[in-house]
Amino acid sequence: MRFDHAGIATDDATTLATLYTDLFGASLVHEEEFDGMRVVFLDLGNGYFELLEPLEDGTIARYVDDHGSGIHHLAVETDDIAGALERARELGLELIDEAPRRGAWGHDVAFLHPKSTGGVLVEFVEH
Amino acid sequence: MRFDHAGIATDDATTLATLYTDLFGASLVHEEEFDGMRVVFLDLGNGYFELLEPLEDGTIARYVDDHGSGIHHLAVETDDIAGALERARELGLELIDEAPRRGAWGHDVAFLHPKSTGGVLVEFVEH
Repeated sequence: MRFDHAGIATDDATTLATLYTDLFGASLVHEEEFDGMRVVFLDLGNGYFELLEPLEDGTIARYVDDHGSGIHHLAVETDDIAGALERARELGLELIDEAPRRGAWGHDVAFLHPKSTGGVLVEFVEH
Repeated sequence: MRFDHAGIATDDATTLATLYTDLFGASLVHEEEFDGMRVVFLDLGNGYFELLEPLEDGTIARYVDDHGSGIHHLAVETDDIAGALERARELGLELIDEAPRRGAWGHDVAFLHPKSTGGVLVEFVEH
């Protein structure tokens, strides 16, 4: 597996994308509306920052309301997301997604509950 | 610049390192006591997870007390940390470190205040 992205919840993805592009020399490589959010991927060459701006009520809207903007999750890329989930299950971890589902950018994703993973919301992603 | 690491505050770096090694196939590549913390770097091939376990009172101890374990910061690697800080200053961002300082693993580091960077505690690191 390898690092894929850090998911960042924000109330203004446009402004943050401009700042990160300028500050980090990152490239905006993908942008879409997905699941009630504006989702922007910034490429750092060896991984992405995924900006998540809520457009309607949902998990990210509630996160921003409760915590303000900030780092929301870490995503690890795998070539075998079903196997990764099975391994997590064997380790006794609590899964948010029992099976992979379609995520942003057309990728297959599955999340693990942070209480099983050191307080970190972990996403497996298979491109 | 490129992604360097996600810093994760934890009350038990040993247990979390074992879990992440198993779950992600990450390799433990560096471990030290630094600035009142046990610091463990796990290599994902294209970036690191840095586990930070407080051994005495300090920023990370207070973070864990207040928020519990979880994602603490995101670090971006640069070949010119002085230039990166200068660019941040030009952009009007609030700096935590006005000049680079010695961080874990002997790297030069400098942090930007999260209120300037979308709620994300950003670290510049030069190896």
